[in-house]
Amino acid sequence: MEPSGIVTLITDFGTADGAVGAMKGSALRIHRDVVLCDISHDITPQHIHQGAWCLRRAAAHFPPGTVHLAVVDPGVGSSRSGLVVETERYLLVGPDNGLLSLAARDDGLRRVFHIREDGPAWRKSSTFDGLTLFMPVAAHLSAGMPVEEVGASTDEFVTIDIPEPAVGRDVVEGQLLFFDRFGNGITNVRREHVGTVEVASVMAGTVQLPFCHHYSELAAAQDGTGALWNADGYLELTVNGGSYESRHGLVPGERVEVRLGSRRSSRV
Amino acid sequence: MEPSGIVTLITDFGTADGAVGAMKGSALRIHRDVVLCDISHDITPQHIHQGAWCLRRAAAHFPPGTVHLAVVDPGVGSSRSGLVVETERYLLVGPDNGLLSLAARDDGLRRVFHIREDGPAWRKSSTFDGLTLFMPVAAHLSAGMPVEEVGASTDEFVTIDIPEPAVGRDVVEGQLLFFDRFGNGITNVRREHVGTVEVASVMAGTVQLPFCHHYSELAAAQDGTGALWNADGYLELTVNGGSYESRHGLVPGERVEVRLGSRRSSRV
Amino acid sequence: MEPSGIVTLITDFGTADGAVGAMKGSALRIHRDVVLCDISHDITPQHIHQGAWCLRRAAAHFPPGTVHLAVVDPGVGSSRSGLVVETERYLLVGPDNGLLSLAARDDGLRRVFHIREDGPAWRKSSTFDGLTLFMPVAAHLSAGMPVEEVGASTDEFVTIDIPEPAVGRDVVEGQLLFFDRFGNGITNVRREHVGTVEVASVMAGTVQLPFCHHYSELAAAQDGTGALWNADGYLELTVNGGSYESRHGLVPGERVEVRLGSRRSSRV
Repeated sequence: MEPSGIVTLITDFGTADGAVGAMKGSALRIHRDVVLCDISHDITPQHIHQGAWCLRRAAAHFPPGTVHLAVVDPGVGSSRSGLVVETERYLLVGPDNGLLSLAARDDGLRRVFHIREDGPAWRKSSTFDGLTLFMPVAAHLSAGMPVEEVGASTDEFVTIDIPEPAVGRDVVEGQLLFFDRFGNGITNVRREHVGTVEVASVMAGTVQLPFCHHYSELAAAQDGTGALWNADGYLELTVNGGSYESRHGLVPGERVEVRLGSRRSSRV
Repeated sequence: MEPSGIVTLITDFGTADGAVGAMKGSALRIHRDVVLCDISHDITPQHIHQGAWCLRRAAAHFPPGTVHLAVVDPGVGSSRSGLVVETERYLLVGPDNGLLSLAARDDGLRRVFHIREDGPAWRKSSTFDGLTLFMPVAAHLSAGMPVEEVGASTDEFVTIDIPEPAVGRDVVEGQLLFFDRFGNGITNVRREHVGTVEVASVMAGTVQLPFCHHYSELAAAQDGTGALWNADGYLELTVNGGSYESRHGLVPGERVEVRLGSRRSSRV
Repeated sequence: MEPSGIVTLITDFGTADGAVGAMKGSALRIHRDVVLCDISHDITPQHIHQGAWCLRRAAAHFPPGTVHLAVVDPGVGSSRSGLVVETERYLLVGPDNGLLSLAARDDGLRRVFHIREDGPAWRKSSTFDGLTLFMPVAAHLSAGMPVEEVGASTDEFVTIDIPEPAVGRDVVEGQLLFFDRFGNGITNVRREHVGTVEVASVMAGTVQLPFCHHYSELAAAQDGTGALWNADGYLELTVNGGSYESRHGLVPGERVEVRLGSRRSSRV
């Protein structure tokens, strides 16, 4: 894979203690012409799923040959490995705790390597592998180091999964995953679960929502409450001009039902 | 306008969900040598005025030919247009909701274009025009696409305004706009409203403040409370070493009076 | 010193008001090819010690010739000077309030210059030296301006210090400095205070902690509570998979004792 020269960064470190700054400096010392691209340093501390989701969402839009570095790493200092995952277009670098697995699956997994602990330019640390291990590996990869040099290839690595909805003939039974910054509820129901059938309505907990195609259709009906496919292809619960989270509550994991077929009176 | 190759970014998205990362990736895929410059992703969600103020304040300092992208967009998915505004030195890209209008006015408005929805490399979206519409347009402009190609020019677009103070012979009657991160109160009274006349004193709500030229002059008088012209040319209410907001309260919109002329006993 | 072309940024400004954006723009206008590298804009407002710590931690990892700009500046507008500090490998730019002093000491202080107020391309301001003074100086230095041109050299400047622990034969008496984003307690005891002697145990306030080498050793003992050397060389109080701060409290400044020598029953 021809490197693009770009390294993206996702961490849960915040920036105020200088740890991310140290990582950036070490990248620039290894590869002066690297293009460092912040994706986020505001992942909730040690929230692997949020980091994996963030990486999955952002990664696919970068030029082929980009190195995506992600560090959300409650197991630092333990025996968990560092990984480099080679996908169709990218190299993903980070801890072996599932953080890389959603992006790896979405972009087409090719090969996985355990980072050896005694690299020519990196070493395993007890508290900060981001600086001593992951960033040096990422920077060297962005400068053209062959991926085989990071360590032995492996078939075993940790994966996490977004729970799959149950797809029936009349209904898709999914769940709420989380709320975004605007209070929109993101569910695990994707457009392809529904296929070409029309959505009749959506039940989220005990609230029935009209389905629509644009936020603006929601202005009048039900105080602006509704559901639609977001740009990422997921069913989103929303309140036009407001926050679904503060208006209707609901807890991640609660049931969200998508009723299919021609529109009918589907009162529950 | 010769492009500088720089694209700046202002959004209210935060960074944790990967949406801003996706936008950056798509810019780099379109224009590998673009220089992406984060201004802010911490605009209060859907706070158009705050975003417009942030853009107005930062934009003018960039090299001519810079593309300024701003997305604070409660109306995404509705019939509101996307705009490209050409000013004396810059191209501004974002939704037609007033977000671009303060910077447009300050830098000298030239031409305004509605972004057509069926571009060669962009499309209107129901939930995320930042990724599918605005960033592709911005990236192509930064790579030299002529601005005329984005769509039809127009004379109609939404503007917002900072309320103008009433300028009298003895007094300028303005108001508090907002508090900044340090608790300084920013008002709508600008240095040019006062001209060459000296400021005698300032009344903010029911508090009379001495006028000064430096934070440091405030150390003794009135617990460090005072008013001065800030670097941006606006009258600022401040407490040296403290927060005006937590010390004296005041609500955006409340009256701030600047008394002019030679210093006199102006008790109210 | 050959400039690396990199300027790093540390401020307590946040980003939402556009002030940092204005600084970045002015840097790019002065030196179009400068590489701007954000370290942090989330320093607690006017918290000089936190900014100094952040700078100290991040600075040393950058390529030689990097210009590190830091602005946490409660004294803006007063008579305090602006400084450029030349160290073995870097140029540090910021206010003369101690902010630069920890990094200056760690990297080997060479020369200190007071920035003259009437520079060819900068000027002292009453409220925002970051934009009018410090960034122009930093950008010109990154483009090769000789450091002697910023102003007169000086031997006097403000320093702050991390309090030094008392190193005894059997015990090192230090204190808690602060908690990081994960709730780990960072102390002022460094690995070199202990030398080659083994650590027997640690007393933090009234809690006795086992010493260990990795977070993962802490899984079982004492609910995961323990102490270890962090990647930065400081003794860290930690709870594996949790927050020391919320589990055990403790206030910055409280006593932390490191007991040395062969392991023994050191009950208090």
